[in-house]
Amino acid sequence: MQEQLIDKVMDEIKKRMENHAPTAAQGAQEKPKATGNPGITEFVGTAIGDTIGLVIANVDPMLHEKMKIDPKYRSIGILGARTGAGPHIMAADEAVKATNTEIISIELPRDTKGGAGHGSLILFGAEEVSDARRAIEVALKELNRTFGDVYGNDAGHIELQYTARASYAINKAFGAPVGKAFGLIVGAPAAIGVLMSDVAVKTANVEVVGYGSPAGGTSYSNEVILQVTGDSGAVRQAVLAAKEVGVKLLEAMAGPAPSSTKPYI
Amino acid sequence: MQEQLIDKVMDEIKKRMENHAPTAAQGAQEKPKATGNPGITEFVGTAIGDTIGLVIANVDPMLHEKMKIDPKYRSIGILGARTGAGPHIMAADEAVKATNTEIISIELPRDTKGGAGHGSLILFGAEEVSDARRAIEVALKELNRTFGDVYGNDAGHIELQYTARASYAINKAFGAPVGKAFGLIVGAPAAIGVLMSDVAVKTANVEVVGYGSPAGGTSYSNEVILQVTGDSGAVRQAVLAAKEVGVKLLEAMAGPAPSSTKPYI
Amino acid sequence: MQEQLIDKVMDEIKKRMENHAPTAAQGAQEKPKATGNPGITEFVGTAIGDTIGLVIANVDPMLHEKMKIDPKYRSIGILGARTGAGPHIMAADEAVKATNTEIISIELPRDTKGGAGHGSLILFGAEEVSDARRAIEVALKELNRTFGDVYGNDAGHIELQYTARASYAINKAFGAPVGKAFGLIVGAPAAIGVLMSDVAVKTANVEVVGYGSPAGGTSYSNEVILQVTGDSGAVRQAVLAAKEVGVKLLEAMAGPAPSSTKPYI
Repeated sequence: MQEQLIDKVMDEIKKRMENHAPTAAQGAQEKPKATGNPGITEFVGTAIGDTIGLVIANVDPMLHEKMKIDPKYRSIGILGARTGAGPHIMAADEAVKATNTEIISIELPRDTKGGAGHGSLILFGAEEVSDARRAIEVALKELNRTFGDVYGNDAGHIELQYTARASYAINKAFGAPVGKAFGLIVGAPAAIGVLMSDVAVKTANVEVVGYGSPAGGTSYSNEVILQVTGDSGAVRQAVLAAKEVGVKLLEAMAGPAPSSTKPYI
Repeated sequence: MQEQLIDKVMDEIKKRMENHAPTAAQGAQEKPKATGNPGITEFVGTAIGDTIGLVIANVDPMLHEKMKIDPKYRSIGILGARTGAGPHIMAADEAVKATNTEIISIELPRDTKGGAGHGSLILFGAEEVSDARRAIEVALKELNRTFGDVYGNDAGHIELQYTARASYAINKAFGAPVGKAFGLIVGAPAAIGVLMSDVAVKTANVEVVGYGSPAGGTSYSNEVILQVTGDSGAVRQAVLAAKEVGVKLLEAMAGPAPSSTKPYI
Repeated sequence: MQEQLIDKVMDEIKKRMENHAPTAAQGAQEKPKATGNPGITEFVGTAIGDTIGLVIANVDPMLHEKMKIDPKYRSIGILGARTGAGPHIMAADEAVKATNTEIISIELPRDTKGGAGHGSLILFGAEEVSDARRAIEVALKELNRTFGDVYGNDAGHIELQYTARASYAINKAFGAPVGKAFGLIVGAPAAIGVLMSDVAVKTANVEVVGYGSPAGGTSYSNEVILQVTGDSGAVRQAVLAAKEVGVKLLEAMAGPAPSSTKPYI
């Protein structure tokens, strides 16, 4: 009886519902039904945001050239995701601090699976594949933390990132000075990011490193992205003020906007 | 009994599940579960299409410069959305007609929440914040009307816009002459827009202001966008002919393609 | 009792439904609820991937000019889709081989309805509308085959294309030599495409025609796209090796990644 009823309800549901597209935060929260290690030596692991980490010990010379990689890096680490660019750049920054690798390139597809933002493709260069693998391992582990201050709901998402000491991934991605505090402020839809940016720079004495909007500094994502540097206390304060106004605006649009994992900053 | 139970289960499901991907029309129809005014002075309101309206009385000078805003505008109005660019540009056009503001910039993210088109970020400049606020209020109110001739289903969407007298937002966005009748014709997937465009220009004696396609004049959206000007009767006729063929093609692909609100033109 | 039943139903639903922004493959599998021929002479047909085929016998001269079409083509064929660029380019290649038409343009919107890849807009030029119609008919028929080696799941998609003899559509799209074997290798998220590319070029003696990634050679899609040419056996071998590793990686991320139709290569 109950079996029949469930089938009947399922039919009804199939008729009435269709096709959903996840917001950035929800996309990130979903646990992919991974089959585990696929038995490929290049596979390192997966993580939140439909992230995959891979290594190649010796990139084929012909491909190496087409990819415009510096010949000194025989080995590369590959960090890619459908949802999230900021969290991955911050994770990559920790990875380059912790390992003997360099950032080759950071690319930002327009993605988030129907959300308003970016996915990412980050390449690490290394002379030894063990270093590339270690960098990917470190980055994959950092992602739970760096997704902590990504908040989202059906209307959009906001993202905050903070580090007391920026390293080479942040420098490569945003041109921010190495060794100084760095903050990243993202609001989507972009209108929210404009106000978050204004609040951030008014709150504390920070320096603006860059400002991206749909027509410049993004891949046509529906985001405004502000990068700031300065004294670590000021940067943290600016980021936290932006977060407060950003969450309120998102919630005014579409109700609760929870963290993708656990707030960190 | 079973009928009642199914209804009860459906209600439960509706409560627990959300977020559909979103054709342009469906995205627009969804009522965001707004928490109302978030208690932020900069907040003006929300509207259809995941639209939010904000103002900033005194943009921070450092941000002002990074945003490349003319220094004479201390105050800005911000109109942003996940779904819809045409409806917002038309609404902004009414807003600049009705208030002492100017259009600073119009940016078109690739969005519509998994749909085929754009979202928008439109900035108004004003010397007084009260003017900026009034412009945003006017624009938010116009949106129900300007979404009227956006039709969509699972396969895509078409959009028609018409005004007897274009003003500065339309001029800024499309280069169309101020004071003359203006028509906007959008079809997605882009193939539909090609045929709609051909039908429009064959139907009436209009002048083509611009033609956008995925590789030029859009943010890689899956749309063909035609802008026409001319005698007001001719423009209206061209737009209506394009609508007829566009709806038929959408419906040939995926069944009924209703208006997002209520047909207007 | 009812409470328990609702919970049980909800569990069942969670198991059976997934929420997901349609992957390329899933988007493609959906059967649009077409209303059939809309009674428009320009309509040719629809196909998998939210594809529509149209013709225009005499493009309006004013539009003709704005579209930058060579004046010698009075008639055009229009092939457009929400999901799929590779399958459509390959189908178009068969169509130009079989008919008296030429490829006017190939445009790649960022689409796939929330997936990681492209849609397409392909224009054929012909002197006679019957030729344009024939080209569209051939292309629409080919799509079931060319979607065969598109594999996808919630995490992304991979795509493989192979032909023993490339013609003018492939040449136009990728610059590959006409008359030689051609292979196309696509992986999304882009990280997967990097490894697939490396495996492909290491497996067989092929020549790399092009390499696209989110920041170059794509419309900011989350893909790496490799194009290879060479001896037909080598090209086929390279493509098949890339497929094997690509499917394994997708499945490691999110479980089974079936073909959109039926594997072909």
